[in-house]
Amino acid sequence: MSASATDAVGFFSVPSLEAYVAGRDFDRPTLVIDTGIVAQNYRALKAGLGEAHIHYAVKANPHPAIISTLIAEGSGFDAASRGEIELCLSQGARPETISFGNTIKKPRDIAFAHRAGIIRFAADAEEELEKIAENAPGARVYIRVIVEPSGADWPLTRKFGCSPERVETLLDYATSLGLHPEGLSFHVGSQTRFAKMWSDTLAQVARIWHAARAAGHDLTLLNIGGGFPAFYGEAVDGPTAYSADVMSRVRDLFGNVPHVMAEPGRGMVADAGMIAAEVVLVSRKSETDLHRWVYLDIGRFSGLAETEGEAIRYQIQTWRDGEETGPCILAGPSCDSVDVLYEKRPVQLPLGLRSGDRVLIRNCGAYTSTYSSVGFNGFPPLEVVAI
Amino acid sequence: MSASATDAVGFFSVPSLEAYVAGRDFDRPTLVIDTGIVAQNYRALKAGLGEAHIHYAVKANPHPAIISTLIAEGSGFDAASRGEIELCLSQGARPETISFGNTIKKPRDIAFAHRAGIIRFAADAEEELEKIAENAPGARVYIRVIVEPSGADWPLTRKFGCSPERVETLLDYATSLGLHPEGLSFHVGSQTRFAKMWSDTLAQVARIWHAARAAGHDLTLLNIGGGFPAFYGEAVDGPTAYSADVMSRVRDLFGNVPHVMAEPGRGMVADAGMIAAEVVLVSRKSETDLHRWVYLDIGRFSGLAETEGEAIRYQIQTWRDGEETGPCILAGPSCDSVDVLYEKRPVQLPLGLRSGDRVLIRNCGAYTSTYSSVGFNGFPPLEVVAI
Repeated sequence: MSASATDAVGFFSVPSLEAYVAGRDFDRPTLVIDTGIVAQNYRALKAGLGEAHIHYAVKANPHPAIISTLIAEGSGFDAASRGEIELCLSQGARPETISFGNTIKKPRDIAFAHRAGIIRFAADAEEELEKIAENAPGARVYIRVIVEPSGADWPLTRKFGCSPERVETLLDYATSLGLHPEGLSFHVGSQTRFAKMWSDTLAQVARIWHAARAAGHDLTLLNIGGGFPAFYGEAVDGPTAYSADVMSRVRDLFGNVPHVMAEPGRGMVADAGMIAAEVVLVSRKSETDLHRWVYLDIGRFSGLAETEGEAIRYQIQTWRDGEETGPCILAGPSCDSVDVLYEKRPVQLPLGLRSGDRVLIRNCGAYTSTYSSVGFNGFPPLEVVAI
Repeated sequence: MSASATDAVGFFSVPSLEAYVAGRDFDRPTLVIDTGIVAQNYRALKAGLGEAHIHYAVKANPHPAIISTLIAEGSGFDAASRGEIELCLSQGARPETISFGNTIKKPRDIAFAHRAGIIRFAADAEEELEKIAENAPGARVYIRVIVEPSGADWPLTRKFGCSPERVETLLDYATSLGLHPEGLSFHVGSQTRFAKMWSDTLAQVARIWHAARAAGHDLTLLNIGGGFPAFYGEAVDGPTAYSADVMSRVRDLFGNVPHVMAEPGRGMVADAGMIAAEVVLVSRKSETDLHRWVYLDIGRFSGLAETEGEAIRYQIQTWRDGEETGPCILAGPSCDSVDVLYEKRPVQLPLGLRSGDRVLIRNCGAYTSTYSSVGFNGFPPLEVVAI
């Protein structure tokens, strides 16, 4: 394993993670998280975001050590559920730093959040505003709007947000219910690799913003959501330059917004995590197959859900790196035929690879541990260790 | 809710499940399993399978009450992992009734199974046979073969099995390692709705079987795997007629096989389960949208993973059934844009549906509870209650 600052495929090596796994045996796949890197990422993003408030998207990785690290750094939190709110509070987060950012909330969970001191809620529909007004009277709300697809690696569906022409209706309705509509939110799309890809989305939202203000709505909050990328092998802007560029575009298009929120998740934790896993079987299906099949002890149902559609190309390291390689179809250990990680674009792995060999999966601190199934095929959920 | 034997869409009503959920509030989505129906399904399948041995595919639903019910009925088990073996043993299964059917096994898990008294293992590659020979010396093995796609609703990938021309090499290799190669296994594909769809697959395997026997291999075991269907709204053969038809085809093509194994999973438990869930939000994205969005408190990451690609159409019942309906896009509660259940083919639901309404999702006893994530977005895994 290289100890230098970057390796052949351009990854920064993470000596702390490499040292931790090098000295240990793991009985099952284990995600190791370096909270020091999470803190570094927070500072790098904050340096670019300036006065904007960071609300870490807890869903990316809710390990308590990540939450407590970010509390110490001064971060706020974007919570998707009562469970995530309880987690943040249990680690010492002040309730006013937690926004309840899910637009789909049960009345009893809104009531819980209100009692716990959460003051800010997302909404995109009349019925949601009614639930908030009834269960968190007087709360601050921001309206999520749908934006047209950007250049994100995974543009979002229309699941979240209202159409632009409905924004003012919802702002008025919120006021009529006794709520305090503060502003707007949107999401540029997960893994938006370059800041310049934000320009169309920001322009769409700015038109809505200025129209609403011109109509008399006193908007003071702009929640720019997430989309801050991680490095998975394709070029991305670095975190500080990226964030500064986005904020510069925000200032150009929106002017002086009193309160900007940003919700990085993946960009905060992906490169802070490495999974130590194991080869379980290497085989060829027939004598003439060019591709081997390599089966790991981790798959789509035990942490690597984001390989669905081969969307994310995790980088894989073995102790045989440097030996001659050949193409492999990579699959997980479960008795489920869809538990295949990479098949359309096979991965190059050493020809000498065999059962028992350790593999390290890099930059997988985001959206792995919680996507893990509770016990599919009798395999336990992904083990997580924070260092 | 109808109390009659069938409802408008042709489902058998399940009075025990309906009565159980009718009298209760659930704080979160809850799968209710009637083990009496599991026992009925076992008997219905067994009546058609005759002398064939049933090994329930534990991965379909590993609830301990299902395992103990099936032990009492005389079922064997197909286990995918050490965890599933431990589960079956903990409920009182005799080890010789449990086959370790995953072709991808860690050496230490094979050793564990061997110590626990498991005598029968699946394999499809040299390296797997070597691991079995080393960690379970003298074990019985069956070789899984790849078959070409059948008429199954979800034909399998090539993840499992070896090509037909490799079977005899592997049988010879197993013998050379001191193992006892007993026979062959295959899988016709999940949710193969009609028995007649087995004919091509069975013919393929029979050719391999007879060739191997002609070459001197004393094959005594044929594992016909799973594929036994559940009813999700499209017609399927009933379990007894289906199983009897499959066995008749087996006899025609293979002759008198001393030991036939079958591994029903979905067909054993799907219709024994019903999920009680809740509408969280109903909205329209714009004034002109024809479709409403209906958000439930259960989605792809909390139990309904098999809606991926809209593969399974779960049937949904509400207390407003009978009122005027309109098309809905159905989505889950998480802050994840892929957590959409049905969008390409919207579902018809009552126009009066609103937040707080209970929905019942029928025939979802298979592949729900264990596909559930361990806590994505802070939502707990699917709750399961056995009655």
